[in-house]
Amino acid sequence: MRVTRAVITAAGEKQRHLPLQTLVDRDGQTRALLALLVGSAVEAGIEEVCVVVCPGDQAAYARALNDLAGRVTFVEQAHPRGYGDAVLRAASFVGQAPFLHLIGDHIFISASDTTCVQQVMGAASAQECAVSAVVATRESMLPRFGAIGGRRLAGTSDLFEIERVLEKPTPTEAEQSLVVPGLRAGHYLCFSGLHVLTPAVMDLLARDAATLPADATIELSPALDRLARQERYLALEMDGLRYAVDTRYGLMMAQLALALSGCDRAEVLAEICTLLAERELIRSAERAS
Amino acid sequence: MRVTRAVITAAGEKQRHLPLQTLVDRDGQTRALLALLVGSAVEAGIEEVCVVVCPGDQAAYARALNDLAGRVTFVEQAHPRGYGDAVLRAASFVGQAPFLHLIGDHIFISASDTTCVQQVMGAASAQECAVSAVVATRESMLPRFGAIGGRRLAGTSDLFEIERVLEKPTPTEAEQSLVVPGLRAGHYLCFSGLHVLTPAVMDLLARDAATLPADATIELSPALDRLARQERYLALEMDGLRYAVDTRYGLMMAQLALALSGCDRAEVLAEICTLLAERELIRSAERAS
Repeated sequence: MRVTRAVITAAGEKQRHLPLQTLVDRDGQTRALLALLVGSAVEAGIEEVCVVVCPGDQAAYARALNDLAGRVTFVEQAHPRGYGDAVLRAASFVGQAPFLHLIGDHIFISASDTTCVQQVMGAASAQECAVSAVVATRESMLPRFGAIGGRRLAGTSDLFEIERVLEKPTPTEAEQSLVVPGLRAGHYLCFSGLHVLTPAVMDLLARDAATLPADATIELSPALDRLARQERYLALEMDGLRYAVDTRYGLMMAQLALALSGCDRAEVLAEICTLLAERELIRSAERAS
Repeated sequence: MRVTRAVITAAGEKQRHLPLQTLVDRDGQTRALLALLVGSAVEAGIEEVCVVVCPGDQAAYARALNDLAGRVTFVEQAHPRGYGDAVLRAASFVGQAPFLHLIGDHIFISASDTTCVQQVMGAASAQECAVSAVVATRESMLPRFGAIGGRRLAGTSDLFEIERVLEKPTPTEAEQSLVVPGLRAGHYLCFSGLHVLTPAVMDLLARDAATLPADATIELSPALDRLARQERYLALEMDGLRYAVDTRYGLMMAQLALALSGCDRAEVLAEICTLLAERELIRSAERAS
């Protein structure tokens, strides 16, 4: 399976500032989050990227992409009908080919020399099917993620055959449908916003868009749940971590994780120690006065 | 001296993304850097703010200001003639009144209940003259700042009468002109990008703009150097720290300093410890493999 196109969703109404936030990458380059995501796709062999945006954001996003702008097509999500609908906006860009899909508010930091995007692309290519990256996640975090149920693929250590997909399951739902044999107790496999999907997903989303009421939200997870019943669909436990940048201190934590994994590790650790010492001095002075 | 107007310069060609970067403030609110700066001026009693920008940035900046947009007038710096020229663009906004001036790429974190902006505004009001905030800075940092020479104002612990201002002095220049009696050896008083200035500064900048060649850069420090010779002009050693956000890890460090000074201190310290532990685990695994 050869994957050359990617879809990045960045149309969240309240998150229009996120793609423009800058981060220093592992190689020390300062780039906008959107450029970092597009760059990670291109680095893994993607040739063309479709970014789904709120109307009016193209110009600023294109400027943030710098030399990567030539690879990117923007598609607007005119009405905020949900995450699944945002993916569906890229249906004609995708056509009849499998595609990489990244969400615009996470970054992925690999624990090895193979990036997280490369890991998922490699698994899809080797297994000739759709593959979603997952991370073993504590039950308490389930309200934030989509999660899968299934069983380990025989002869592999990091692949799972997906049987169920549930969006933000309750602990009871998770216990009934999503327990994966062999995982640490109280942990579930949650999506990390990084997938290689087949065009069948677009058909499933289009069916939801046509049948659901016009004001209903179209999610991606129900379509992926049905995908698992109609074709082979695997989960890959990433060798790495995901960082959500849409939470309050998400950007800082993502930046810190990048810096501690990259070429500036020693410099940044030293700066943090200096800063902690300065702040403690100030607090001591406050207490004394 | 009553100060009701502020000028924020944010027209650096390479820093057009900076005002849109978001930070979580000490009170836990997520705001764009520009909103944080304008908010700090308003909190200190400023009624109207002029933001000097690159042509074309108004719309995005105004959106980032949210409910503060009504207080802000944008003025374009059509040609990048330097920092002093950017300040001069606000001459008609300022008129014949003293004004607060903040640079758009620093944040200030007070060590007391009085914000840094309030400290400078208070000193200008009490002393009835221009006041620049300064921070005692190691000699090795001189290439990044404007610095002052002068002597401590009798009867005060944190005010200095400014005699000289030099932009990015060499160590030799600093030793010859900027040694301030009573400071720790090897330290100089450097600007932190926070001033209350008199309209005389605009006249001095206008003279530079008229006499320097059209392609010359107009700096602020030479005008302030002449200001010190023609009127009373003080430096206030801030009770707090400045964080430059235009350096590579500046945003992260500023965010960390804000978080450690604010209401989320305990939560953020815990998150950082968790993250450090995770990264160390990954590095151990890398070494073992």
